[in-house]
Amino acid sequence: MEIDIPEVKAEVEAAFAEYERALVGNDVAVLERLFLDAPTTIRYGVTENLYGYGEIAAFRAGRPSAGLARTLEKTVITTYGTDMAVAATLFRRDAASGKVGRQMQTWVRTPDGWRVAAAHVSVIDDPG
Amino acid sequence: MEIDIPEVKAEVEAAFAEYERALVGNDVAVLERLFLDAPTTIRYGVTENLYGYGEIAAFRAGRPSAGLARTLEKTVITTYGTDMAVAATLFRRDAASGKVGRQMQTWVRTPDGWRVAAAHVSVIDDPG
Repeated sequence: MEIDIPEVKAEVEAAFAEYERALVGNDVAVLERLFLDAPTTIRYGVTENLYGYGEIAAFRAGRPSAGLARTLEKTVITTYGTDMAVAATLFRRDAASGKVGRQMQTWVRTPDGWRVAAAHVSVIDDPG
Repeated sequence: MEIDIPEVKAEVEAAFAEYERALVGNDVAVLERLFLDAPTTIRYGVTENLYGYGEIAAFRAGRPSAGLARTLEKTVITTYGTDMAVAATLFRRDAASGKVGRQMQTWVRTPDGWRVAAAHVSVIDDPG
């Protein structure tokens, strides 16, 4: 399985960037579209564990829209073959000094574009 | 991309079970073997962020060998096509009452067998 085929990586980088813009801008429609609409999709959030696309969409709809700005660090997008990828990034928020967030997503190619099939977000004390 | 082809799923379930046995039994050699030996492999742990197979292996070597027993809950293994899978599970430890762990791994098929290309482990207050 070839890692980081340039054309594939460019596609996933674009999808990841679209997701990040939607997250910071609280564009719920885009956030929902970019998750795979399947009962198998899982999102472990900062304080919640969501199983299935339905639970994830319900969570998005009730998401607070303030304080979403964040800075990314050590973002690594890696593609495996032509149809899957992992996007991992650290993030920081001004209001959470001394903490660092970690976001990891598994992306899969679908006929409609790249979608997040699994995601895990957590915040820990900054290990430095 | 076909989800959960039974033969593929059975392979990943076996690899996941092998990993879990090694984790609880602190079989460092197996834990190291089951991670993809690549600079792109990432593991976000409960308190640390490890980039590249080298950092992950160094962490494993210094891992405490006590208090590793845990109970899994809501384990979901989902395969996408024939060469990738996501394994997500909650876990609890007797010594961490009121907390729940989340472990998410992206597995990829290699000529040597299935390997973890990315993992994220975190512990949060049990949302119930």
